Amino acid sequence: MASLQAVHNIPEICAQLGITDVVLSPGSRCAPLTIAFARHPKIQVRTVPDERAAAFIGLGLAQAQKRAVALVCTSGTAGLNYAPAVAEAYFQQIPLVVFTADRPPEWIDQLDGQTIRQTDLYGAHAKGSFHFPADTTHADAHWHATRLVSEAIGLAEQFPAGPVQVNVPLREPFYPQQGEELQFGQVRVTRELPGRPQLPASTLAELREAIRSTSRVLVVAGQHPADTDLLLALHRFAAAWQVPVVGDVIANLHLPAAPGYDQRRRPLGRQDVFMAVPEPGLKEALKPELLITFGQSLISKALKLYLRNAKPAQHWHVQPAGAVADTFQALTKVVRMEPADFFAALSEEGSTSYAALASDSSIPTITAPSHVAQPDATRVAPAPQPLGQPARLTWTATEADSAKAAYLRPWLAAENWATEFLHEFMQQPNQPFNEFTAIYRALQLLPDRTALHLANSMAVRYANILGLPTERFVEVFANRGTSGIDGCTSTAVGAALAQPARPVVLLTGDVAFFYDRNAFWHNYPTPNLRVILLNNHAGGIFRLIDGPRQQPELEEFFETRQPLRAENTARDFGLRYLAVSTFAELESALPVFFAAESGAGLLEITTDSPTNAEFFEQYRAAVRTSFS
Amino acid sequence: MASLQAVHNIPEICAQLGITDVVLSPGSRCAPLTIAFARHPKIQVRTVPDERAAAFIGLGLAQAQKRAVALVCTSGTAGLNYAPAVAEAYFQQIPLVVFTADRPPEWIDQLDGQTIRQTDLYGAHAKGSFHFPADTTHADAHWHATRLVSEAIGLAEQFPAGPVQVNVPLREPFYPQQGEELQFGQVRVTRELPGRPQLPASTLAELREAIRSTSRVLVVAGQHPADTDLLLALHRFAAAWQVPVVGDVIANLHLPAAPGYDQRRRPLGRQDVFMAVPEPGLKEALKPELLITFGQSLISKALKLYLRNAKPAQHWHVQPAGAVADTFQALTKVVRMEPADFFAALSEEGSTSYAALASDSSIPTITAPSHVAQPDATRVAPAPQPLGQPARLTWTATEADSAKAAYLRPWLAAENWATEFLHEFMQQPNQPFNEFTAIYRALQLLPDRTALHLANSMAVRYANILGLPTERFVEVFANRGTSGIDGCTSTAVGAALAQPARPVVLLTGDVAFFYDRNAFWHNYPTPNLRVILLNNHAGGIFRLIDGPRQQPELEEFFETRQPLRAENTARDFGLRYLAVSTFAELESALPVFFAAESGAGLLEITTDSPTNAEFFEQYRAAVRTSFS
Repeated sequence: MASLQAVHNIPEICAQLGITDVVLSPGSRCAPLTIAFARHPKIQVRTVPDERAAAFIGLGLAQAQKRAVALVCTSGTAGLNYAPAVAEAYFQQIPLVVFTADRPPEWIDQLDGQTIRQTDLYGAHAKGSFHFPADTTHADAHWHATRLVSEAIGLAEQFPAGPVQVNVPLREPFYPQQGEELQFGQVRVTRELPGRPQLPASTLAELREAIRSTSRVLVVAGQHPADTDLLLALHRFAAAWQVPVVGDVIANLHLPAAPGYDQRRRPLGRQDVFMAVPEPGLKEALKPELLITFGQSLISKALKLYLRNAKPAQHWHVQPAGAVADTFQALTKVVRMEPADFFAALSEEGSTSYAALASDSSIPTITAPSHVAQPDATRVAPAPQPLGQPARLTWTATEADSAKAAYLRPWLAAENWATEFLHEFMQQPNQPFNEFTAIYRALQLLPDRTALHLANSMAVRYANILGLPTERFVEVFANRGTSGIDGCTSTAVGAALAQPARPVVLLTGDVAFFYDRNAFWHNYPTPNLRVILLNNHAGGIFRLIDGPRQQPELEEFFETRQPLRAENTARDFGLRYLAVSTFAELESALPVFFAAESGAGLLEITTDSPTNAEFFEQYRAAVRTSFS
Repeated sequence: MASLQAVHNIPEICAQLGITDVVLSPGSRCAPLTIAFARHPKIQVRTVPDERAAAFIGLGLAQAQKRAVALVCTSGTAGLNYAPAVAEAYFQQIPLVVFTADRPPEWIDQLDGQTIRQTDLYGAHAKGSFHFPADTTHADAHWHATRLVSEAIGLAEQFPAGPVQVNVPLREPFYPQQGEELQFGQVRVTRELPGRPQLPASTLAELREAIRSTSRVLVVAGQHPADTDLLLALHRFAAAWQVPVVGDVIANLHLPAAPGYDQRRRPLGRQDVFMAVPEPGLKEALKPELLITFGQSLISKALKLYLRNAKPAQHWHVQPAGAVADTFQALTKVVRMEPADFFAALSEEGSTSYAALASDSSIPTITAPSHVAQPDATRVAPAPQPLGQPARLTWTATEADSAKAAYLRPWLAAENWATEFLHEFMQQPNQPFNEFTAIYRALQLLPDRTALHLANSMAVRYANILGLPTERFVEVFANRGTSGIDGCTSTAVGAALAQPARPVVLLTGDVAFFYDRNAFWHNYPTPNLRVILLNNHAGGIFRLIDGPRQQPELEEFFETRQPLRAENTARDFGLRYLAVSTFAELESALPVFFAAESGAGLLEITTDSPTNAEFFEQYRAAVRTSFS
């Protein structure tokens, strides 16, 4: 058995277990892996020089394809540059199989070049760390080498998915002879057949009884990929029990659950607006007794703090496996089921017909705001209108309301009020040019089926306040596993590579954008990628939050003002560049920018950080004073 | 005791223990650290948004200042972006004190933003990981908080120096009241007083006797900062015992040891040239019986492989403390002394007068090549000359030679031959424009007292072949701890910030340069920085080494051709930009580029990767055929 055959088997095992994409970064020590992957007929290899960007591109590919992607790097600090993406993959539960080439163990710490201590390189942020044998001449070692690659891929993909490291020590010679053909195919793999956990019928009955007997049941969704099975189950559950369902934009609950889905019964998403209303009566009315959650993190700090404070008597979190966070300091039950199974199983019997639910007019609904674009509407932003006195948020239970409907009513009233309030506030005329309104307008015009990537830190927060057009099938992605700014662009690039027929739009700030410019530094075209850059020449978030903006260190040490414009970057990487700094320019640019035939583009929206802060403060004041 | 007082003490402890410079990256969780450092009167704080670059800038500052530098970042993946620089600092033995702000322990894994598992974040690549208490209201906890910062700084600076992490969990509120003055000064620190190990006289006598009785004693230096005490001791030792001393360019042995130092007795540095000569007689003549080494890694692969193969009977490594690598698979003794003390102690008695040694004509010397610039010489590159038949390398022991002088003679002959060979080869006329010769010319014109930073991967190798002008006091730095390309530019930027009155020149390739462009993304001027960029639009090293250049994957997966030119980067960051692609342009540009009044500059030398490979192959063929 040639000593490199075990290495040449790696791409074959990957291919057999469904991995189709590999991102590699060039190096010498990793040459046997590079050559084996590059020559495998079923694997698409892309090479990206900056490992930090490469790993986030891999994450974006895996996130879009919903299957594991492999990364390959050389020995030394190459693998450490993967660490931010590996941590994001760990907490966002995205499967990555990280092959780190290494020197053989006897040469570690012997002052050879590009040699660090690669065992367990990612510490607590990998699901596992596998040690490929340095010598596979013994048959048992060869079996071990094969087996552990299967195990690593299986572990990466098991729920909750995540990154694994396979450290591959390699001795010279690295290269096949000229004309030598690599052998693929003679390898046995182990496949994982994942099961779906089910609770005993008696336990389900107890849970159902608890839901039935509780007036104030609230469902809150954390970050979750778009999933129509889940949306439909959730819709049935919510409509059957008349239970409010609340989700941030990253929960992807704004997507239609089914054809003909009644938008008036969609989940709620304006909590960042109405939770900021300083109205004790509302807060009291919204208090849950039983909180049911699923998914990962929330963006809405207002909702999170409210629920921590509201302390429901019961908090159930639905998650089939893995560690569970006690986000609201109130966790009482962990339900080990798929959320889609849970909501389907606990919908009231007899009410599972979607059509029946959709036409039941006794269930309160969400009022479609006047500006919600219809599928056939012309894609233009609505005309500005004067800001009147904001409507007051009121709700009154009717006598006919069940206890559950009486709890649902203030939630729906709050959502309806917030929608109308935002609509009026964002469209008031004579605004100074500011990024909050610019985003509002850009989001109205997103192409159908956009994969929308929201960068940390302000882009994702703004979008969560503003919400998304409901009928555009816009799916939302954000690196909220660790909420870093370090790889948002690369993740979007990975998504664009994975789905060439789908528009991928990245909304990002200047610090996140320039931080991760090497996302574009490779030779693979992304004609479907659009980057909307909000350039306020600083980390503008620090002017928006209390604390830093009162400090003398604000400009130098928090905002860190920076003079870069993106034009040179766009030129370097062949992105179609559009720059706007007025609303009129923005309105003209957006249709050109989003047009499919425009190719990869960068729209730089330049604003002034103090103006942004002032406008955002006006928004916050308007929310606060709506009830004074 | 206010709960943030323990945090406000951190900069005071740093200042009392000699830390003057802090590099921070903006964030919210780290605000108490940011404000405390920014307001401390004795600390200079610089803010750099990209943590990967920030950490390497800190490393460059610490390397230049020869004392610890502190890094401050916020929670989450910020600290993971430090990891490549932390590993480099670990293996290059540079003291960094890394303060990572964190959430308090109870909020880890609870789906809050920017929260990862920061305990022991750098694993095996930090000397220690310290856990600042989350609550310092108890007097013992306050004492602990103070004590551990002293301990962390002490550990970072103890030989072998390196990075330490201090993880600082912080609860809100982060900000002082408006107008509140922070209190500094009321804090007790613990100082380390480092000792120098000495061997017992009897042991020294045994070592001296071993040196006296061995004919073939060779000294090889690994990477080492410039150190005149060491150079002088080494010179005395070498001259007294007539022992060859060999060092790569990163060993900084080319620097003059003392005023009036006899250059003909300088250590040898042409091993990359003469070790490539396929002459078994020479290899036999150079074999050591006793090899004495000090310092860190070697660049010269030829020398390293030769010594592994030559297997001296004895190999002593001189290093006062810490783990020791067995670089040549031959280690027999670890001598726990400072190299300067060791060579001083083991110089022959009676021969410690430098003047006496310098005038002893019985000791063989190095011939100064005709092109070595003299201190008063005009700074121009030598005129081209036709390449004649290279001189043959010959050596003949005279009858008067002692056994030691007979061993020294072939080493000196090889060095002299290589110097003359290089001189003739590099100056031959009618060369195609290529990066090897371009570097040769640029190195000839380096300003006096340059801090020369050599990037991985080809820049440092080329420079090691070519050597440096001897009388220019050029000190050499390179990230050879891990030999990564990831932070070479940032390290040079840190060096430029640390030594504003000294020219700092970075010699780098295009992959290393574009990888680390964020080195320039901050608001601190570096008028003394000059970047020489060798742009061959690819990782050209892969065309120069056997293996990849024979593979069909060469261009896409090894070289990774990339189209970037640096002009846009220079424009983004206000660097004076000069571009050359002929020898004539290079000759005109260099004096302008190096002139002190030119300010921060970038000289882009554009070459063609296949042409470079062809010319370098000619060089290698000329070395090989000199003896055919």
